[in-house]
Amino acid sequence: MSRTPPTRSSTGPIRLGPQAHAALRPSVAAAVTSGFWHDRRRVNAQVGIPQGPALLEAAGNLHNLRLVAGDAEGSFVGDYPFQDTDVYKWLEAASWQLAQDAAAGRGTSALAAEVDRIAALVAAAQQEDGYLNTWFQSGKGEGRYSDLRWGHELYCAGHLIQAAVAHHRATGRAELLEVARRFADQIDATFGPEGSGKPLDTFDAHPEVETALVELHRETGEPRYLELAAYFVDRHGHGAHGHEPYCQDRVPLREADTVEGHAVRQLYLLAAAADLAAETGEPALAEACARLWHAMVATKTHLTGGVGAHHDKEDFGDPYELPNERAYCETCAAVASIQFSWRMALLTGHARYSDLIERTLFNGFLAGMSLDGESWLYVNPLQVRDGYVDAGGDHSSRRTRWFRCACCPPNVMRLLGSLEHYLATTDGRGVQLHQYASGRFEGEAHGLPIIVSANTDYPWQGRIEITVEETPVQPWTLSLRIPQWCTEYTLVHADGGEPVDGVVLDDGWLRVGRAWAPGQQVVLELEMRPRLVVADPRVDAVRGCVAIERGPLVHCLEQQDQPGGGLDAVTIDPAVPLAVKERPDLLGGVVTVVAGGQRHTLPDAGWWPYAPATDTTATADSRAPGRAMELTAVPYYAWANRGTGSMRVWLPTG
Amino acid sequence: MSRTPPTRSSTGPIRLGPQAHAALRPSVAAAVTSGFWHDRRRVNAQVGIPQGPALLEAAGNLHNLRLVAGDAEGSFVGDYPFQDTDVYKWLEAASWQLAQDAAAGRGTSALAAEVDRIAALVAAAQQEDGYLNTWFQSGKGEGRYSDLRWGHELYCAGHLIQAAVAHHRATGRAELLEVARRFADQIDATFGPEGSGKPLDTFDAHPEVETALVELHRETGEPRYLELAAYFVDRHGHGAHGHEPYCQDRVPLREADTVEGHAVRQLYLLAAAADLAAETGEPALAEACARLWHAMVATKTHLTGGVGAHHDKEDFGDPYELPNERAYCETCAAVASIQFSWRMALLTGHARYSDLIERTLFNGFLAGMSLDGESWLYVNPLQVRDGYVDAGGDHSSRRTRWFRCACCPPNVMRLLGSLEHYLATTDGRGVQLHQYASGRFEGEAHGLPIIVSANTDYPWQGRIEITVEETPVQPWTLSLRIPQWCTEYTLVHADGGEPVDGVVLDDGWLRVGRAWAPGQQVVLELEMRPRLVVADPRVDAVRGCVAIERGPLVHCLEQQDQPGGGLDAVTIDPAVPLAVKERPDLLGGVVTVVAGGQRHTLPDAGWWPYAPATDTTATADSRAPGRAMELTAVPYYAWANRGTGSMRVWLPTG
Repeated sequence: MSRTPPTRSSTGPIRLGPQAHAALRPSVAAAVTSGFWHDRRRVNAQVGIPQGPALLEAAGNLHNLRLVAGDAEGSFVGDYPFQDTDVYKWLEAASWQLAQDAAAGRGTSALAAEVDRIAALVAAAQQEDGYLNTWFQSGKGEGRYSDLRWGHELYCAGHLIQAAVAHHRATGRAELLEVARRFADQIDATFGPEGSGKPLDTFDAHPEVETALVELHRETGEPRYLELAAYFVDRHGHGAHGHEPYCQDRVPLREADTVEGHAVRQLYLLAAAADLAAETGEPALAEACARLWHAMVATKTHLTGGVGAHHDKEDFGDPYELPNERAYCETCAAVASIQFSWRMALLTGHARYSDLIERTLFNGFLAGMSLDGESWLYVNPLQVRDGYVDAGGDHSSRRTRWFRCACCPPNVMRLLGSLEHYLATTDGRGVQLHQYASGRFEGEAHGLPIIVSANTDYPWQGRIEITVEETPVQPWTLSLRIPQWCTEYTLVHADGGEPVDGVVLDDGWLRVGRAWAPGQQVVLELEMRPRLVVADPRVDAVRGCVAIERGPLVHCLEQQDQPGGGLDAVTIDPAVPLAVKERPDLLGGVVTVVAGGQRHTLPDAGWWPYAPATDTTATADSRAPGRAMELTAVPYYAWANRGTGSMRVWLPTG
Repeated sequence: MSRTPPTRSSTGPIRLGPQAHAALRPSVAAAVTSGFWHDRRRVNAQVGIPQGPALLEAAGNLHNLRLVAGDAEGSFVGDYPFQDTDVYKWLEAASWQLAQDAAAGRGTSALAAEVDRIAALVAAAQQEDGYLNTWFQSGKGEGRYSDLRWGHELYCAGHLIQAAVAHHRATGRAELLEVARRFADQIDATFGPEGSGKPLDTFDAHPEVETALVELHRETGEPRYLELAAYFVDRHGHGAHGHEPYCQDRVPLREADTVEGHAVRQLYLLAAAADLAAETGEPALAEACARLWHAMVATKTHLTGGVGAHHDKEDFGDPYELPNERAYCETCAAVASIQFSWRMALLTGHARYSDLIERTLFNGFLAGMSLDGESWLYVNPLQVRDGYVDAGGDHSSRRTRWFRCACCPPNVMRLLGSLEHYLATTDGRGVQLHQYASGRFEGEAHGLPIIVSANTDYPWQGRIEITVEETPVQPWTLSLRIPQWCTEYTLVHADGGEPVDGVVLDDGWLRVGRAWAPGQQVVLELEMRPRLVVADPRVDAVRGCVAIERGPLVHCLEQQDQPGGGLDAVTIDPAVPLAVKERPDLLGGVVTVVAGGQRHTLPDAGWWPYAPATDTTATADSRAPGRAMELTAVPYYAWANRGTGSMRVWLPTG
């Protein structure tokens, strides 16, 4: 792999080491300045992140820290051994937000004070030898590292490390990083291969510490952390946890041929493997990551980018087992999928990884947060039935203020807080725009900085104006990802509208290699005609159905928008052309897609819902024609913001 | 409801009291003498039940009883607080088997000795005050009745009572009944409404004690047991368990409009409610039972009769949420469904309840036991994918010798052991044949006994010869259920083949009211042509699919029988007529259905399994024609008896 590593590093997640075997590196000094993602991030900054401390206080997480520090009376509050991670993920989110605010020159004193206060609670809770876990320290769990199948101690350590790395990168301050190092050293002294003299030769059944240790290595330069990460990744699949798929222990990663078990665990493990492959350059590990990514995407990913088919054990299902109403598609799994895919994008330079990131960001991920930033979805199904009974709990299809198991909300916060770092890269020979958002992105060529800015109303419009703000005089390559959903596009000079010549389409990348001048502007226009999509016939759950997409957005029907109410009796007529309707009044301002359909009379099947097939019912176009109606489809990310009601992504054609 | 209660009672389950408000009573002295069910019951008698004690010993259940009796060292073995029920259900099954053997004049000394031995272990484990639960007595659980959400103490008591009642009915002996009474009295002294002076006003979140207490009342005449059962049933739905659907506590039963929560819990509760409605005659309770039965069958029952859509929490799903590969359809839920439906059949006299029983018995229930009686399925899906990965555990689609949670096998044993009592009834004015099996069934009219015998090769053939063996001289009515799946039938005199005249079809019952003479014989012929069935369009999981049925049997494709292997690429052509093929060589001897189909070339979709619809792909008949092939469908009950492999009940038409 020919590489020309850039000389400067990103200030966001995944600061690849100077010798990393990666095709791309995250853009240095990226910023999102307006438009769709800027609006979502503003909600995160103004509502999401600021509400964190009060919610963590109410849920007992901060009390638990004070409790084990000796600064509070009582006992552990909460049901799970991993509750400290809610605090750590919030600290990570807030740290990225501090960096973002600092880069934008905004005052951040209130947030900075909260970060200081909560980081101090964490530091005070740490034990003398570096260990830190309030569940076990409070006596709720029995015996340190005695239950690595369920105890989540290293998982918690991983999130602490991630928070500390973010805090250090964002603020330059070392207090939290020091806490993380002491814990990492305690873990390093405890876990190791048989014969190493370390007491425990096993791993935490919930991965996270692995990818965190790679980042800690990147931040500190300490090789022991990289070695420890590699040891943990390699330890999977040898039976330490009974070869359970749930524990990512059925087979070693390098031998696996599909993703399986708990989706978040699988994806955090794969993110670590991709991190290691980048740092070590091991081909077998990189190949395993690519193979498993492809198996996941080709056979186990919902149209929304959501993954994890099973509620039971939060598992991946079998290939093509992609249910609608019981799609688990945990919000955390969307975050984990993006983290894994982004590392693969950096490692390989292939555009398809960012295709999946785009789909997941705009759909399966973003649906997890309400439009107002105040409530959440833990699971993200593709269908809610007319007869849905809300039994409450974390897995409700009604948005919830906070969960008993509150892993998802701060996971959304930390990804939104650092999103600018997932949009553009440099390979030392130019800039690659992976996602389209209005902002500034810095890359490098010939050892000199490049700054490009983008201006767009994406995803509502397909026009993206790209301006070269700063450039070396020598030629370099601007690479623009042509999304996998896009079949028509143009690239023209803003000045005059002439097509840009010498452009090459290279496996999803539109490459513009040429000399650039400051102020030069090109316009990429992606055709945004709405479309119907169908699934591979092996996806049994959506046989005889189509879905509506426009640009990167998957759409859905919500019953609130359809004349006559519920969706049980509604079919779509694929022969009626789709139309686009701007609706600034709806759901914070969306572009809807209007389709033609029918409302049928529901059969009165008596007491048994199955019947002998007749000539007319043995095929899918079985129903008598219904009453013609207009169907209004809204972007999936905006569903469930108007109370409860039925919803469908996949629409029957008959 | 006009009733003429018969003067004698069944010796099987549900011995209705003399004043019961029920339309029908179980046949007195029923026997199955040959044919399909006789063969299945012989496997149960010769393999299933005899293997019980060794399996219960190996799993620790008997050790646990000895442990708390002070006759063993060590600690509780097993993971669940309800493990005593495996012993109790086996005792119930063995007791029914003893009764069956005695009625057939067979020697039973070995089984009787095992029953005596294990009943003595149970008696020895009981505490002075009547309490008995090895989980709590061994200290594994903390504090009697302290965790009624999960402790299962009354659930265990219920199965002990059922075993004791069966033992008493079967053998006339009182030792085990005395153990059950002492426990019931302890429970009665502990639980009662506020103000009753009893310490606990709540209920066990897993119903079973309720229906058991009704049977104990029937066996002993003690009214307190009936009152206690009514108290427990009424206590549901008022928030004692946080209104959780899982605990059957969301709403009171009389206000519910659908079945919900844990399927087995719901159905055991409903069985108790139907028992109470029969004993008390309360119309509101009978109406609620009928309403919930209809909601379950019309919207939440799989084609196999299986119920419980969710693995997660073993719950019912939403209406029409009936997945194939993730159908949970626990074997115990099939047993519970049959128990509830049979009580409704007795209560109301309606044929539809026995229609569902027939469907469940031959399909969703029977699939739970292997052909050789040595291994089991806990869950009974309607599809196993080509890419299925067996992660082992209780919920595997591979048959298992015994489960960690071994509730299902002894549940199958006890239902098969008492099956003759679910086949025929009397209303004091004649005999009703609900199910067709070769055997003898006794009823009553004019206060005098009627004995009819049936001779049939059902379900392989539709011919049923019915002989009146013993009859009063006065007229009485022979009622024959015409199965819901059957659209053509004839009833003729065996002597000469003339149609029987004066016959009335009355809501599923063919009524033959006339004077009969001993030896008189009629022949019912049910047309057994194989058929394709389709589902209500709201059953999204099977859109564009048909299933194959013949008589009461649902069929499936197993990959072993199809040329070319896996099922992912196979479609059925509904235009090709179905054929029947007798296969004495296959699966213990079955009649297969042969259909026409195609094997397609699977799409190579690249890395993303969704694509824009074209004119040809937006409808269900989208695939290019494949290679014509013959499909061989076997009865669903016999699947998974030839190792692992893919399986489908619902077959795509395109």
